[in-house]
Amino acid sequence: MFCLDQKLEGDTYFVADLKISRLLLMNDSNYPWFILVPRKEGFSEITDLTFEDQTELLSEINLVANFLQKNLSCDKTNIASLGNVVKQLHIHVIARFENDIAFPKPVWGFEGAKPYEEKAAQKLIAEIKSFLS
Amino acid sequence: MFCLDQKLEGDTYFVADLKISRLLLMNDSNYPWFILVPRKEGFSEITDLTFEDQTELLSEINLVANFLQKNLSCDKTNIASLGNVVKQLHIHVIARFENDIAFPKPVWGFEGAKPYEEKAAQKLIAEIKSFLS
Repeated sequence: MFCLDQKLEGDTYFVADLKISRLLLMNDSNYPWFILVPRKEGFSEITDLTFEDQTELLSEINLVANFLQKNLSCDKTNIASLGNVVKQLHIHVIARFENDIAFPKPVWGFEGAKPYEEKAAQKLIAEIKSFLS
Repeated sequence: MFCLDQKLEGDTYFVADLKISRLLLMNDSNYPWFILVPRKEGFSEITDLTFEDQTELLSEINLVANFLQKNLSCDKTNIASLGNVVKQLHIHVIARFENDIAFPKPVWGFEGAKPYEEKAAQKLIAEIKSFLS
C-alpha cells in the first residue's frame, strides 16, 4: 500500500494521481513548485524503479515541465531528485523566474516559504489539471 | 558543433564521451560529483531533447548513479537539472554521504569547494571509466 510521507503531505496540496506518481503542489507561493511521488512503497532512488517505470516517470516529468514552460512561461525549470531529508522518492519540478525571490539560487534551504491563499492554490491546481486532461 | 560551456569546462575534469552526453567530474573533492552534458548545441532544458534522447540520457544517469551506489556505497544520490547560472543543459549526479560537509543540504551554493589532488581525481576517473566499460 502506498503511504505518502507525512512531511510531504503536510507541505503540499494534492493535485492528482497520474499513472506512476502522485502529483503534489508545494505550499510555497514563491514559485510554482510541483512534486511527483512515484506510488511505490520503500523506494528512495530513481534507480529503485524499473527502467520502464523510470521512463513513465520521465513522461510525467515532461508533462509538468511543459505546463510550467507553456502555460506559465517560466524562465527555467528546475528538476531534481534529492531526498536527503525526506527519504521517500520524490521529484521536484519547479518553475523559476529570473525575478523570483531566490533566483539564481536553488529553492531548497531558502528561507521564507510563503503559503498560498487557498484561492490561488486552487486556481493553479485547476490549471494544471486542465492541462493534463 | 558541440562546445562545452566555459564555466563547466573550468570547473571540471573530462571523463568520457558517452552516447548522448559528455561525462565530467566536478573539481570538488567534498563529494563525488559527476555532470552529464548532452552534446547538443543551444539546449537548456531536458524537454528540449526528443523523448528518445531523454531516455538515452536517463540510461546514462542510471550508469553514473549505479557507480556511485555500488562502487562508492553512497548514502543517497542527488540528481538534478537546474541551470539557473550555466544555461547549457547539464545534469548533476552526486554521491552524498551522511557525514559529508554539506549533508543534508544541497551541494549548490555551499561554500568551500575543495579541489582534488591530481592523483585522487585521476583515480576516481579511472574507477568510473572501468565501471562504464
